[in-house]
Amino acid sequence: MSKSEETLVLKLSGSLFFSEEYGKVTKAITGALQQRSQIRVVLVAGGGAKAREYIDVASKVGADQTTLDEIGIMTSRINAMILATSMGEFSETNVPETLRELLQSLKQNRAVAIGGLHPGQSTNAVGALVAEKTKARRFINATDVDGVYNKDPRKFKDAQRIDRISIGELEEIIGGESMQAGHYDLMDPVALKLVERSKTSTWIIKCVSKRIESALLGERVGGTEIVF
Amino acid sequence: MSKSEETLVLKLSGSLFFSEEYGKVTKAITGALQQRSQIRVVLVAGGGAKAREYIDVASKVGADQTTLDEIGIMTSRINAMILATSMGEFSETNVPETLRELLQSLKQNRAVAIGGLHPGQSTNAVGALVAEKTKARRFINATDVDGVYNKDPRKFKDAQRIDRISIGELEEIIGGESMQAGHYDLMDPVALKLVERSKTSTWIIKCVSKRIESALLGERVGGTEIVF
Amino acid sequence: MSKSEETLVLKLSGSLFFSEEYGKVTKAITGALQQRSQIRVVLVAGGGAKAREYIDVASKVGADQTTLDEIGIMTSRINAMILATSMGEFSETNVPETLRELLQSLKQNRAVAIGGLHPGQSTNAVGALVAEKTKARRFINATDVDGVYNKDPRKFKDAQRIDRISIGELEEIIGGESMQAGHYDLMDPVALKLVERSKTSTWIIKCVSKRIESALLGERVGGTEIVF
Amino acid sequence: MSKSEETLVLKLSGSLFFSEEYGKVTKAITGALQQRSQIRVVLVAGGGAKAREYIDVASKVGADQTTLDEIGIMTSRINAMILATSMGEFSETNVPETLRELLQSLKQNRAVAIGGLHPGQSTNAVGALVAEKTKARRFINATDVDGVYNKDPRKFKDAQRIDRISIGELEEIIGGESMQAGHYDLMDPVALKLVERSKTSTWIIKCVSKRIESALLGERVGGTEIVF
Amino acid sequence: MSKSEETLVLKLSGSLFFSEEYGKVTKAITGALQQRSQIRVVLVAGGGAKAREYIDVASKVGADQTTLDEIGIMTSRINAMILATSMGEFSETNVPETLRELLQSLKQNRAVAIGGLHPGQSTNAVGALVAEKTKARRFINATDVDGVYNKDPRKFKDAQRIDRISIGELEEIIGGESMQAGHYDLMDPVALKLVERSKTSTWIIKCVSKRIESALLGERVGGTEIVF
Amino acid sequence: MSKSEETLVLKLSGSLFFSEEYGKVTKAITGALQQRSQIRVVLVAGGGAKAREYIDVASKVGADQTTLDEIGIMTSRINAMILATSMGEFSETNVPETLRELLQSLKQNRAVAIGGLHPGQSTNAVGALVAEKTKARRFINATDVDGVYNKDPRKFKDAQRIDRISIGELEEIIGGESMQAGHYDLMDPVALKLVERSKTSTWIIKCVSKRIESALLGERVGGTEIVF
Repeated sequence: MSKSEETLVLKLSGSLFFSEEYGKVTKAITGALQQRSQIRVVLVAGGGAKAREYIDVASKVGADQTTLDEIGIMTSRINAMILATSMGEFSETNVPETLRELLQSLKQNRAVAIGGLHPGQSTNAVGALVAEKTKARRFINATDVDGVYNKDPRKFKDAQRIDRISIGELEEIIGGESMQAGHYDLMDPVALKLVERSKTSTWIIKCVSKRIESALLGERVGGTEIVF
Repeated sequence: MSKSEETLVLKLSGSLFFSEEYGKVTKAITGALQQRSQIRVVLVAGGGAKAREYIDVASKVGADQTTLDEIGIMTSRINAMILATSMGEFSETNVPETLRELLQSLKQNRAVAIGGLHPGQSTNAVGALVAEKTKARRFINATDVDGVYNKDPRKFKDAQRIDRISIGELEEIIGGESMQAGHYDLMDPVALKLVERSKTSTWIIKCVSKRIESALLGERVGGTEIVF
Repeated sequence: MSKSEETLVLKLSGSLFFSEEYGKVTKAITGALQQRSQIRVVLVAGGGAKAREYIDVASKVGADQTTLDEIGIMTSRINAMILATSMGEFSETNVPETLRELLQSLKQNRAVAIGGLHPGQSTNAVGALVAEKTKARRFINATDVDGVYNKDPRKFKDAQRIDRISIGELEEIIGGESMQAGHYDLMDPVALKLVERSKTSTWIIKCVSKRIESALLGERVGGTEIVF
Repeated sequence: MSKSEETLVLKLSGSLFFSEEYGKVTKAITGALQQRSQIRVVLVAGGGAKAREYIDVASKVGADQTTLDEIGIMTSRINAMILATSMGEFSETNVPETLRELLQSLKQNRAVAIGGLHPGQSTNAVGALVAEKTKARRFINATDVDGVYNKDPRKFKDAQRIDRISIGELEEIIGGESMQAGHYDLMDPVALKLVERSKTSTWIIKCVSKRIESALLGERVGGTEIVF
Repeated sequence: MSKSEETLVLKLSGSLFFSEEYGKVTKAITGALQQRSQIRVVLVAGGGAKAREYIDVASKVGADQTTLDEIGIMTSRINAMILATSMGEFSETNVPETLRELLQSLKQNRAVAIGGLHPGQSTNAVGALVAEKTKARRFINATDVDGVYNKDPRKFKDAQRIDRISIGELEEIIGGESMQAGHYDLMDPVALKLVERSKTSTWIIKCVSKRIESALLGERVGGTEIVF
Repeated sequence: MSKSEETLVLKLSGSLFFSEEYGKVTKAITGALQQRSQIRVVLVAGGGAKAREYIDVASKVGADQTTLDEIGIMTSRINAMILATSMGEFSETNVPETLRELLQSLKQNRAVAIGGLHPGQSTNAVGALVAEKTKARRFINATDVDGVYNKDPRKFKDAQRIDRISIGELEEIIGGESMQAGHYDLMDPVALKLVERSKTSTWIIKCVSKRIESALLGERVGGTEIVF
């Protein structure tokens, strides 16, 4: 890593793939790489709806949770392959399957796309782990919702987005979440523990092109920041 | 391999997964393993509809055919994982990703499930290659149709199933087929070349439980046999 | 896996290695294998004092937590190699480094020793994950203390051991623990989440030969059982 | 890949190794790399006479075709190692054994030498596959003969070289060829299928230094071009 | 390893391959396996004349000694593949490329064939290392000559075979030998150091079927034994 | 490798780790890299005291020498990880575990840290092998003592350091040394054989910052040079 390099980790919600927004998001990422030639971006793809379809079928025939995790990892890698293709010359062609491979693939002014790495760790946790290992400047978690709310915004009209939140507060909000493959929202407990121990600057934003481009350029619009 | 062992390679159409017939087929396979304790079965899973959905999306963002093959391989491996789960103690848990791994996993009275192995080779070709390498007694290709017809049975009412066919005749029938990922039917040219060079006994049968069980027990009902 | 096989996962505290008790514990394990020929045992070795020494030095020169985890994993693998050696013909010689390798090494009437697998997962979490994937009958966590207490038994004389505890209660007790490499006690939050999702029967016992032998033979003496 | 990079895939006939022409050919390749600093060259080495000697012996002791392929792959990798050595600083030192490794080794103004990759695919097919995956500008197949002839030039004096040929015509000419390890000439059916699906610009030229240098510099002298 | 198992390591001179004696030797090995069902045999294949031809060519184009070792390793692996094929059901199909793989392949009443493992170690040294790691009962080194002589038997008519020799004496006799790839005779200094440290019972015998069969059955006819 | 690149291999004594001198040595290395931007440095870490502690314990429970070597390799890799961390942006993050990985990690103006590679080869031998394969300008072996003496300097007051020594003389001095894991001093016989065959320029110097910095900058102060 030369002194001027800076790593950003961007987790993309699995719901992005097969959606209308997809093309705009990849354009936003290549656009940011063109503007800031010294950055390296690790893109972590989630699994999405197809992952859940596979997981549901596997679950019905008796698969244990570790196997479901493995299926989720494979679907997220397919999404990562599609992502790498979309980015053309702005991305490495290979989708690394281990931390070692990832570290060897990182290059200035280039993105590397990965999916899950290991059972027991959601792609959110992978994002946090990779941010820790690459001493990333920031972990940007692009999710289905525009940050963290004090109540469930799909149920309560008066739910309010929280601009800055501590790990402790966030753990309380999501503490009750299960750890089942394909069902992590926002950040799961394991991902949070990893963010907590490394104190990585973390932004939770909505997975749309404008928000992502701003975040890659260093400015958070909307969303929630985890503070330490 | 002890003298009494016998290897069978069974390719399962990708369309089987997510279908009604699926549960019956896995039961047929475990049933055959219970009846014939000296056999070893290599199950090769195809990609199916989900593979095609991924491939279509990847194709739209500019993926080359090798990348599409790689995506097809990953989806077939997910199907193989589901298959291995369904078979319970009658199958190895791991889905081998190379010929080497496969050879180390083969055990008497047990199945091993795999998906694709390498770009440029359909899962049909994988079935033929594995049959060759394991000196399998037979390659059973369970497909969407009940064997090879002299005309397309979906178009022509008077189409007739061919009971026994030579490689040369079969090549003529399917010669015009493209080699695009996710679109192989029956047997593609590469798979046929592999069957031809190893002279493996090959049956093309319909992918339903009854036909599969008969085939595993050594009797062909319907379908087409390739003769040399 | 033949029908009569049964898998047990036994996590051994890193403090066992280089201790007086060590020889007795390995004898207890081989003794149990001799008595119950149908079991397969996965031994998960912790890192112990040497791991912490390495981690302290690495930490001082600026290593991130993921790198510290990796160092912890390597020390636990050395312990696992020593363990495999001690067991002689009752253990596989190789120390698997991935879940895949582990699954291929499991054999009836034999132990396989492993250390950590992946950064972000303590060896406790590895034990829970392996128990889930191998559909183990039980995860036996042999630790420095004789189970879970209502207060810290090193500080309070009137601390009482809890015989049976729910995941929720246990999470509350250990919730405040950090996730730093080399400093997990009993069960860390990630390990607990994995036990919770798979509902694996889990015993937390003291890492001494008598308790371990009893546990391998199916009887818990002392310690704490996690109930669901 | 930066925008100015351009990949060329050059298959070198196995007969080149151990021949007089060898030294001139490697000089021609390094010369071309010196003149055109933005290109990346993938060199695919064939097996040659030694491969056939090994294959003949293995065949006599009963090796199946897949095993013969594997032996052919290993000999072509030895040739690739010799090739990489000859190129000195103009080539990567390692000989990649998978597509993944190859992609990670590609660098501007440098060659990477490989042999075969997978049983069932000749080194011609490997050349076509690599050209597809690297979006190569051209696949140059340097063979024993100076392109494709309308009759066998070794038998018929009036045989005429075909300057441009379609895949369909070429398939007809070579259609009868067997797929046995070590016996592919020009282009085998599998290689042709791969060229066809990717529509890679393909030149079949004679494996001599002058022709190779011209081809690397973008000009075809003699030989046959496959047109789509 | 069950108590009744016993491992033998048999190094076969590279000159055996492509020789008249070859078929008889493989028959002798399978014969011994049939007579002694509890043994496991590791066959280490040397490189032979073909290895030297490749090495000579690579040397001329400037390959360093490590690269020459790597080429030697690959040729010995091809010989090992041929060997495994010849042994049919008495041998594993795969040729392990690491110690780990080898250990996982060892099974009672079966042979595993390997070639070289790592640059800087001749196949003689590999034999010694494998014998050490597998706690082999004996390392049988089948070479071009019938044991160790007090003078070079090709030059001196009165040369006498030494029946039993110490490591120190043997080191003196072969001490002046170079370590160049493809040129090890009998035992090179590295192999001797490995035999010395493990005190493995070692026999140096002539690579002919009768002597090999006797040795596998536990009786040395002719040859030289290394004593400690 | 571009023409201006130059590789240096620096073996660091295992005793350096956990010592006072450690911080100064890493600073000396980064300092040299800052002054000479065209060099590439391979750092080979020894095992040191902790390695010997593990090896002693493993030895007591009956580990063979190959297993002890494997434990030594793992401890040296941990040291290499610590070393890579200390060097910050001047070093690759990953610790290669094979020659292949090492070659792919080498980059101008950067260090790569490794430990042992294969049983039967000390880290001294690894240094010599890597120097050979990378065509290094020099192998610098930084040890506990300031070069080679005509007598043991710890016992004899009149022992004199030898400035330049031939391989033959050095072999005589260290010839009697054993090959046991964790007990190599200076250079073991295998390492010497490797230096001899490649004729790599080799310096044996004291493992202190000043001597190391001078050596990296091309000047030997004290120590012993091996001459051919």
